[in-house]
Amino acid sequence: MRTNAVTNHPAAALRALCRTGDFTGPTAGYADGHVQANLMIVPKEYAFDFLLFCQRNPKSCPLVEVLEPGRVEPRGTPGADLRTDLPGYRIFENGLLKQEVTDISAYWRDDLVSFLIGCSFSFESALTEAGIRLRHIEQQRNVAMYKTTIPCLPAGRFKGNSVVSMRPVKSRDIARAVEITARLPQVHGAPVHIGNPQAIGIADLARPDFGDAVEIMDDELPVFWACGVTPQYVAELSKLPFCITHVPGKMFVTDQLNE
Amino acid sequence: MRTNAVTNHPAAALRALCRTGDFTGPTAGYADGHVQANLMIVPKEYAFDFLLFCQRNPKSCPLVEVLEPGRVEPRGTPGADLRTDLPGYRIFENGLLKQEVTDISAYWRDDLVSFLIGCSFSFESALTEAGIRLRHIEQQRNVAMYKTTIPCLPAGRFKGNSVVSMRPVKSRDIARAVEITARLPQVHGAPVHIGNPQAIGIADLARPDFGDAVEIMDDELPVFWACGVTPQYVAELSKLPFCITHVPGKMFVTDQLNE
Repeated sequence: MRTNAVTNHPAAALRALCRTGDFTGPTAGYADGHVQANLMIVPKEYAFDFLLFCQRNPKSCPLVEVLEPGRVEPRGTPGADLRTDLPGYRIFENGLLKQEVTDISAYWRDDLVSFLIGCSFSFESALTEAGIRLRHIEQQRNVAMYKTTIPCLPAGRFKGNSVVSMRPVKSRDIARAVEITARLPQVHGAPVHIGNPQAIGIADLARPDFGDAVEIMDDELPVFWACGVTPQYVAELSKLPFCITHVPGKMFVTDQLNE
Repeated sequence: MRTNAVTNHPAAALRALCRTGDFTGPTAGYADGHVQANLMIVPKEYAFDFLLFCQRNPKSCPLVEVLEPGRVEPRGTPGADLRTDLPGYRIFENGLLKQEVTDISAYWRDDLVSFLIGCSFSFESALTEAGIRLRHIEQQRNVAMYKTTIPCLPAGRFKGNSVVSMRPVKSRDIARAVEITARLPQVHGAPVHIGNPQAIGIADLARPDFGDAVEIMDDELPVFWACGVTPQYVAELSKLPFCITHVPGKMFVTDQLNE
């Protein structure tokens, strides 16, 4: 699946492969240096509440861009189409996952509002450049994500807890990982929790709620960052009548650079 | 009007005087160290568009807090009532200023959404502490504000240009004033323009669109910061059917501290 051709592909080429259905995998490690984004699509009726939710929970939901109702072409990535250019989508009804698809053209309506939310994949290159190795990338897996008991600030009909992504980091590197990511508030910023997964409601690190588990070595601790999958969990807990999201790990790859 | 009793009053006491109609002046220099906020109130129908406008124009509209529809008590300032606790309000219809009042209880509706927007008054104490004197405060006037030709990024039905506040700063102090305010993005951040008022559509500094003119000395330049009165000008240019705002310079004084 992962060929050198795709690995070195620019963002537009990766999106084109998604559009034709030829790329349907996780996007971590692809189109290096490009901002990747979580996607949340809600009917206009809930758009104010959700925008307010993002404004109140900027660590989980740092906004990259919000599109006007009905629009599918982000300003930051001209020519892209949010209905086709992600590797995978999830359709939720009343908070329940109904379907996973690779194209949402059939579900599109003029009252749908798309939110692009920053993604931790954008800070991974900063970490690896600093010599902090990331196991899920080395093992070509999706990052491990967990539902937590950390409450979000509610907004209108959006109420719930946050989702975190986890990366094992060596004890000697943790402070540096904090410093590096703290400088990037537009992509979740500093970790929300370090070590002690039980304290935030994670019973078993080997069984992530989204993505793939990775091993944690003796000289490492699990480090948790706020995650843009949070809206999916909040939609579930809030029993939101309708929304469309990306599949966790299968992001929208923008034309914007990480800096 | 300005007595020592009021000058040294905490924020809650100043709001109480507003509530009873005993304080109706500009709030600059009062309740030192407290965050002051611009107010914009729009019907729920336009709330998503306006929240998006703020998100796209964070220098003009840095959000302090957004309240749920119908709510009048900010989370950040429990016990306050946005309908009564400002010194003055403006009622706009179809973009036209219809009335100035000191209490909007009679206009309140359950579908109104209140936005509190950061205000440059919050950075003025940082400037004066650094030894940068502010003439409008020394002369107990309202700060001078001007409509400009600097376009905002449009959002839905909000389209228009920004309003700036102006403070004369000595040439030797301008770089320091930039550095100090750049560190405070939650209250407009660094200046948007320095010198050359004509370049941003200001014909005559002696005739501000809002607030009071101040003299500019030979060793000074006019320094312009983005201003939270921008929504009023944008509402005017967009012919917004209905909104309520504060009177420029007559802010909501919160319980939150500037740092």
